[in-house]
Amino acid sequence: MNPLAPLFSPRSIAVVGASNDTRRIRGRLLKLLVEGGFDGPVYPVNPSHAHIQGLPAFALVLELPQPVDLALIAVSADQVMGVLAQCAERRVRAAAIYSAGANGLPPGQRLQDQVAEFARRTGMRILGPNCEGFFDAKGGLTATFSPTIERIPPHPRGALPLRGRVSIVSQSGAMAFALYSRARAEHIPVRHLVSTGNEADVELLEVVDHLVAEGDSRAILLFVEGFHHPGRFAAVAARAADAGVVLLVAKVGRSGAGQRAAISHTAHLTGADTAYDAVLRERGAIRVDTPEDMLAVAPVVSAGLAPAGRRVAIVTTSGGAGGWAADICEQAGLEVPPFDDAFRQSLAAAVPDHGATNNPVDVTASVVEDGGATLLEILRLLGRSPGTDIGLVIVSLVVAERLTRIEAELAAIHAGGGRPLVFHSPGLADPLALEVLARVGGLHLGLAAFARAVAALEDHQRFLERRRQAPPARSRPVRPAAALPAADGPLDAQAARVLLAAWEVALPGEALAAALPGPQRPRRRWAGRWH
Amino acid sequence: MNPLAPLFSPRSIAVVGASNDTRRIRGRLLKLLVEGGFDGPVYPVNPSHAHIQGLPAFALVLELPQPVDLALIAVSADQVMGVLAQCAERRVRAAAIYSAGANGLPPGQRLQDQVAEFARRTGMRILGPNCEGFFDAKGGLTATFSPTIERIPPHPRGALPLRGRVSIVSQSGAMAFALYSRARAEHIPVRHLVSTGNEADVELLEVVDHLVAEGDSRAILLFVEGFHHPGRFAAVAARAADAGVVLLVAKVGRSGAGQRAAISHTAHLTGADTAYDAVLRERGAIRVDTPEDMLAVAPVVSAGLAPAGRRVAIVTTSGGAGGWAADICEQAGLEVPPFDDAFRQSLAAAVPDHGATNNPVDVTASVVEDGGATLLEILRLLGRSPGTDIGLVIVSLVVAERLTRIEAELAAIHAGGGRPLVFHSPGLADPLALEVLARVGGLHLGLAAFARAVAALEDHQRFLERRRQAPPARSRPVRPAAALPAADGPLDAQAARVLLAAWEVALPGEALAAALPGPQRPRRRWAGRWH
Repeated sequence: MNPLAPLFSPRSIAVVGASNDTRRIRGRLLKLLVEGGFDGPVYPVNPSHAHIQGLPAFALVLELPQPVDLALIAVSADQVMGVLAQCAERRVRAAAIYSAGANGLPPGQRLQDQVAEFARRTGMRILGPNCEGFFDAKGGLTATFSPTIERIPPHPRGALPLRGRVSIVSQSGAMAFALYSRARAEHIPVRHLVSTGNEADVELLEVVDHLVAEGDSRAILLFVEGFHHPGRFAAVAARAADAGVVLLVAKVGRSGAGQRAAISHTAHLTGADTAYDAVLRERGAIRVDTPEDMLAVAPVVSAGLAPAGRRVAIVTTSGGAGGWAADICEQAGLEVPPFDDAFRQSLAAAVPDHGATNNPVDVTASVVEDGGATLLEILRLLGRSPGTDIGLVIVSLVVAERLTRIEAELAAIHAGGGRPLVFHSPGLADPLALEVLARVGGLHLGLAAFARAVAALEDHQRFLERRRQAPPARSRPVRPAAALPAADGPLDAQAARVLLAAWEVALPGEALAAALPGPQRPRRRWAGRWH
Repeated sequence: MNPLAPLFSPRSIAVVGASNDTRRIRGRLLKLLVEGGFDGPVYPVNPSHAHIQGLPAFALVLELPQPVDLALIAVSADQVMGVLAQCAERRVRAAAIYSAGANGLPPGQRLQDQVAEFARRTGMRILGPNCEGFFDAKGGLTATFSPTIERIPPHPRGALPLRGRVSIVSQSGAMAFALYSRARAEHIPVRHLVSTGNEADVELLEVVDHLVAEGDSRAILLFVEGFHHPGRFAAVAARAADAGVVLLVAKVGRSGAGQRAAISHTAHLTGADTAYDAVLRERGAIRVDTPEDMLAVAPVVSAGLAPAGRRVAIVTTSGGAGGWAADICEQAGLEVPPFDDAFRQSLAAAVPDHGATNNPVDVTASVVEDGGATLLEILRLLGRSPGTDIGLVIVSLVVAERLTRIEAELAAIHAGGGRPLVFHSPGLADPLALEVLARVGGLHLGLAAFARAVAALEDHQRFLERRRQAPPARSRPVRPAAALPAADGPLDAQAARVLLAAWEVALPGEALAAALPGPQRPRRRWAGRWH
């Protein structure tokens, strides 16, 4: 049986600390759970009220009327261990802890240490503490207090769009929901979101593995400050590659200041980041450097774009924008090759006399004035253009009607052809036009985003190709070595290098950073992770 | 007298070819002119109707009741020269020609050649042919048929926001209005927009010079396929630098495909692009590579940000986002230095116990729950942080109230302090929050955009500093040299190198591109410019 099923697919849920005040975390948590449409029993636990938000409430976990799969725990930090003890007694199988422990305690006494020890002892699976929760849009389960979810609810059960689903797994709750809100604005269906918090028990890579096995995500967006169990990554990445799931990874800590922000013990991290970079690349993950980068690549993966090569065909209604697009593609390492004569002849029938049939094809603004017939004809031709791998259509969508009136035809082209329709509107696109594109399975991208995403995905295709030709041994054991550390706990840089070398990951040169001046104050979230 | 005044500041306007059908270019032109609030007389010219859009119409330009400053000409191409002859006779002083001539004619017979000869002969100043027009938001003059302007009208006369105004000058009409729509979405007030089209007479650099002299633009965004008179650039750039106007330049033609798109004669352009790059850099223009790049730098210039150095102070409500921001800044060449102890002590009073007072300062999400008091206190402290040049405030604006309830205090901080308030919301920001920021003079930027823009503007500050220390001779004549070409016409690559060398611009190494295979079909817009 799947060990994370009670956590992510519970049949019944207790909300411990539930409140009537929905402006507070403890109240919003229950409200969003109910509104999200969870279809099993929900039991608020709160000794002060007989009913919470209209539901019968229970004074104690011990008094729950039946064993429940999952307890959502939003009590003060000093009450958490007592609640967990009751959960164990009442045969609760999993918990998510939203509460954050006090800072600056020595290792062993911190809340996450106590929770970790409890989880090991009882076998209960626990998310957090200090997590912002999770949701499962397909399962109708919303277990978070995030204000973002009040404003942008997950797609209702059964209403997830057909475009490739994406999931988000993040050690930072804020970044999880930030990426979620931005992905939704790009019309990306978000299947799962999981904020892992302090990771006393359930950690990021285990969640990723669970979602890969679950099989409904085309990509998983990861926001990582550090892998709790780096030794797991290679195997998880291999299973993702086998399943056709693309891992998009934002890993913080390239810079000294980024390391200061991520953890309080910094001196050995610079080396670790270069090791991360190597292992991510080696295992086929796409590392993104900025939020802009993440939101460039994610929609393209979601739309199923898997370019076989780097050759771009550009069709434009604006000669200026076409030239700029060509420059940007070639600077990103793509090619915009001239078309052959035969294809130019076939284009010439559709392109007005004052346009240009070479690549970029300048169809001139006049083609959008004919009700869309010429545009459609050119899109059909583009899908068959020999010698190119992907097409980019540059047309102003300031006026939404240019797409709304040809939605059915666009859907047919997309359903019939192999290549996704990628559009770019030089001017600010009407949201209605972008909705049409999303519905037919097409895409709208900025020019830099297009070039970056196509280059990254073509790299990824080549990784997959190399892997098919020389498949890695699935479960090759770590080679025995005298100095090899245990692969199942946090590692310092030196230990990571040893482990990576054992996994035959080529490591780049490494610089030793000096300890940073000034007082180091322990931080709440990451203190101790790298002890 | 300013030679472009009759064109850009006319007292009276004739619209030649005006139509009642506002779905057509000839009708929309008149409609937008009237709606834009031009406050002089407007004379539609059309032999078929006594009234056009309710205004008395005239059959011929010759029959206009008075000499007018400006004729907007939107007749078929074969009628243009006849209309111009009547304009000269009726003492029209300037014209904008929207009509596009037929393609593929030999030089000398094309519409732009005939217009150029007419302008030289009569002294009439002429924009176009094949331009998309212009507007002057402060003057209330809208002389374009762009559908974008129907959807996003220029700010009405007297209603331009106080934030630094930006103007747009573009050889591509589509790109002019595309950049306009995107700038407006970033809350940038756009003062002037000019689409120069085929540049038979008035060309891009002359317009830039005019707008610099006019003195109301903090930045000018240029979209360039090629300078018609490259020899003018150094002097125009010098006057811009003297006036404190930043030139942001998108120059198409880095790539072979970009050159194909820009002109039909390509073989000598690769060299020319490296020369462009050198001269732009040497003269302090900021060259942008992508639309994303342009829209990163433009808002920051508009807001008046002129960082004295590269040291960034980051304050964040999310430790994850703060770490990512620090990484991104340092990768862009900025610094995120640790704070000194004294400043950390002063922060400690405002930062919650479980936060962090080092740089990045993690104020934790709890500070936004107190009505904004702590956030304001930290913003005030940040404005005085020693050892940093600019502050970045990372706070979720998914909930607009976080700013709407402190708008007055934000305005006071911005009015009182030297540094602009730069915000980043990791999650999708509520438009209301962004409006508050725009009103108080603040900024919202993506993380990559922030880092890119600050690095570019700090470079620009250093350019200005070098220039102050060693001011260039204002009007140093081109050094006599046997092979020196005339500086006042289009140049090929070799001639450009000679000229640039004469201007003592250091040139990078250059590669010779082969002529491209396949048939070359002449293009409407740029054919012949480089003859």
